[in-house]
Parts: sequence; structure tokens; C-alpha cells
Amino acid sequence: MISDAPVPSRPVIGVLHPGAMGAALGAALKPRAGGVIWAAAGRSVTTSKRAELADLIGVPDVAELARRAHVIISICPPHAARDVAEQVAAALADRPDRPLYVDANAVSPATVNGIGELLGADRVVDGAVIGPPAWEPGRTTLWLSGAAAETVAGLFTGSPFTAEVLGAELGASSALKACFALQSKAMPAVWLAIAAAAQAHGVEDALRDQLAREGVDYAAAVDTVTARAGAKAWRWAGEMDEAADAMAAVGVPDGFSRAAAAIYRRLAEDDPTDRANPWGLRGGR
Amino acid sequence: MISDAPVPSRPVIGVLHPGAMGAALGAALKPRAGGVIWAAAGRSVTTSKRAELADLIGVPDVAELARRAHVIISICPPHAARDVAEQVAAALADRPDRPLYVDANAVSPATVNGIGELLGADRVVDGAVIGPPAWEPGRTTLWLSGAAAETVAGLFTGSPFTAEVLGAELGASSALKACFALQSKAMPAVWLAIAAAAQAHGVEDALRDQLAREGVDYAAAVDTVTARAGAKAWRWAGEMDEAADAMAAVGVPDGFSRAAAAIYRRLAEDDPTDRANPWGLRGGR
Repeated sequence: MISDAPVPSRPVIGVLHPGAMGAALGAALKPRAGGVIWAAAGRSVTTSKRAELADLIGVPDVAELARRAHVIISICPPHAARDVAEQVAAALADRPDRPLYVDANAVSPATVNGIGELLGADRVVDGAVIGPPAWEPGRTTLWLSGAAAETVAGLFTGSPFTAEVLGAELGASSALKACFALQSKAMPAVWLAIAAAAQAHGVEDALRDQLAREGVDYAAAVDTVTARAGAKAWRWAGEMDEAADAMAAVGVPDGFSRAAAAIYRRLAEDDPTDRANPWGLRGGR
Repeated sequence: MISDAPVPSRPVIGVLHPGAMGAALGAALKPRAGGVIWAAAGRSVTTSKRAELADLIGVPDVAELARRAHVIISICPPHAARDVAEQVAAALADRPDRPLYVDANAVSPATVNGIGELLGADRVVDGAVIGPPAWEPGRTTLWLSGAAAETVAGLFTGSPFTAEVLGAELGASSALKACFALQSKAMPAVWLAIAAAAQAHGVEDALRDQLAREGVDYAAAVDTVTARAGAKAWRWAGEMDEAADAMAAVGVPDGFSRAAAAIYRRLAEDDPTDRANPWGLRGGR
């Protein structure tokens, strides 16, 4: 029989995986944790170095991490969130109790609810990070929802992450993140569509002039989104897929985020040094 | 045999139809026209009054206008542009020469090219108005492209409309307008999708807070697009359909404008006094 013990006052916390955000989350949790562990198998040298710099403790693999952790934080690219949860579920098969599992990824409420079915809806907490990896307070919020949201929020007290509880409903944090991403990632992707179409139709100079008359700096707008997305475009594509699902689930047209996903996917595939590329990624000039 | 006489120095100009923009265009053309005419049949009392105020000359119907005009300006809702051109084509069947026909509507390059096939590609000029109905100079540009673009531009010399020739290619002005509309109409429509989704997911308060931390005024953003679209939402929906076609024609993801079309269509159908409506059209508060 599975028993869900309360989280100890200094829990072992597992981070899957210590990317830039995961390392910051792990470091933020150290003061209140009995230990912050990560799973080395299959991770890159960059990840290892990051985990080492953040002073996290390596364990061999996800199975070992899942056996030892009282709280697991999944922080990975959106398209990998379900896989990570399935790896943990497999590892938990021979464990009598269930850890708290925080899915802090930019996924749809439906994806989080699926993870809830997999790992126990009352043991999963829906998390959404808005802001950069936090090494000092004030810039980044971790929104939390679910039955154990308050417990997880408590672990971040006094840390660089501002934890905010959004209620007991699994999916609320993810919905918030999806709505926010429409503004922060879908909206700027419109500039890449505009640049591509203006170039293909041969009207980019006129467009730049017309926008300048309206006080809009076309070159700056295109350059800004290109620079912001940059090496993250492939991850943003996955986030836009999930945001589209979040829209469609409540009957809202999902075309903005579907188109943004397609655009970031193309951006990720583009060679930024290819001056003949048709995507206008440095299209402003 | 059809002969295409040059446009006389003081041509008769027909405006189909004197809506707010059509009346301004008609008034702008009066100083250089032998007469500016409009077709009364089937038009509203509002249109009649507007035409009267702009001192335009009424003729009974489109057939009579098409027989008398040296230059015809089509300025109507995007979804009606093809119909108006077909009415003119039918009326021209018993006329030996062909007038210049300016399609000044927010349609796709494909729609303009279709009108070119109907009325003669060398007699059609592609026009795109960017800015409000112009009663004084400096705020509104009429972009023109096509074989006779220069001729049409000449008619606007010294008028409140800044006429700019964008080249000889039919479709260029429409492509420019479509790209511009992605910024001016598709991008703000994202706010309506965000508002609808945030309300449906129950995270609107958290979203408002989070956006405020980023310096973004959610209520103002939603209210601005709602007020700007206002009674024009049904026309913007048609424009977004055409802009989507302009994107798809050059292989650019068209989801932004398709979703915007769906959203403006719903906005047009909404009762703005219905406080239970799920579209968040006063969603900021």
C-alpha cells in the first residue's frame, strides 16, 4: 500500500534537470533542503558543470533520484515534460510512498493533468516560472497550484524565487503561463511573420517607412524578437504548442500560438549566418 | 474593339462607395476631377448624407457610374471587393473603352490579381489606404501599384491623401497593407485571445499582477483593442482573412491572421452589454 508521508522539514529535493533554470531552482532550495540532488546519466558536460557550480549533489540516474527524493522538481523543455514524468513514474514502481512532484514546465493544463493521473493528482504541484533564472530576489515568480502548493511554496521562502500560490487546482499555473506566453512569445513572433512576408512580397522598404510614420521601429522590433528567441527558439516552439493546447481547451482560437510554434521551429532550423535565408530574421535592415 | 483612351485632365471619378473613407477620397479628388460621382442604389441614408456633405454627385446605380466614370475607386469592406469589381465588369460590357479601376481595399494580392483579370491588368491599380479618412494632410497614405499607378497618384497631388507609388506590380500595395495589418490588427487581437483564455481558466487576476510586474497594463491593452476594433470588428475580420491569404501565398504561417479573423468575428457578434460574455472584451477589470 502506498502511504504519502508528509514532507520532512529538511527534505531531499531532486532537480530534473539542472539547466540554467534548474540550477537556479536547485541553488535556491539548498538552504531549506536536506540535500539537492540531480541525475547525471545522459546529461551534458555543460549540465554537469552547472550542477557543480550550484553545489548540487549528483546521483547516478533518474531511478536513483526518484528513490531518494522527497520532492522532485521537473524543469525541462516543454516537449520533454511528459517523458520526464514517465521516467519518474517507472522508478517509483518499487517505492512504497510517493514524493511530491512539481512540474515547473511551460506545458498546457492538459499535460499537467495527465502527469497528475500518472503520479497522483494530490502529489503533483503545477508550477510556472515567469522570469529569468533567479540568483537574486525580485525578478522571477514561481506560480504554484495544486493540493500541496503551499508546502512547495514554503521551500522557497527567503529564496531568490518569489513563490505565489494560485490555488488548489492543478492546471491553473500552467494556464497562467500559457496566457502570459501569448504576450511574451506569440505576440513578438508576429514580427517574424511580417518580416518574412514583406520580404517575399518585396515591400519591406515601404513597410519600414510606413511603420516609421506610425512611430514603430520595424528593424528594432524584428531584431528584438530574433535576439530574445535566439538559441531558445526550439524550446519556445514547444512552449507555443502547449500554449495553443491551453487556448483550444477553452474554445479560444489557437492560431496565434500554432503559428508562433511554426515560426520558432523554422527560426531554430535557420542558419543565422545565411544572409539569403527567407525568414527575415535580421530583416529590419 | 476596346480602346483605352488616356485619362482626361479633368476626369469623371466614380467612388464605390462613399463610406467614411470613400467620402474622404471623393472629397480629396474634387479639385482635379471633372466631377466625383457615386451610385445611390441600395446605399444607406448615412451614405447618402455623407456623399451630400462631401458634395459628391449622385447617379442612379453602379451601371450608370461605370458608364460615365474615367476612373473608378472601389473602397468597401474587404469581403465585398470582388463583388463590386464584378458589378463594374458587368456594367462595362456595353462600353467600348475601359476606365481605370483603383481597388483601394484591404484585400490580398490574389484578390487584386483576380480583379485585374476581370477588368484588365493594365487598367487596374492596386491601392492601399493606411491611416484614417483624410480631411487634412499628413496622417494618411494611399499606396499605389500597377501600370497606371502614377496617373492615379497625380490625381491626389495637393490633397489630404499622400499618394505613394510602390511600383508597377499589381498586388504590391495589398501585400504592404496585409503586412501592416498583421501589426496593427492581428497583434492586438492576441490580447482578446489572452483575455478570453485567462477568464476561462480563472487566472485573470494573477495574469494582471504578473503583467504589471513586467510593466504591462493588461486592462489598458484589452480595452484599447476593444475600443479600436469597436464597430469595425466585422470589417477587420474580413481584412484578417485577406491578410492570411497574403501570408499563405508566400509560405508564411497564416495562423496569426486566421485567429485574429475568428476573434474579430466573435467580437462583432458579441453584445458588448452582456456581462456574462466569455470573450473578455472589457476583460481588463
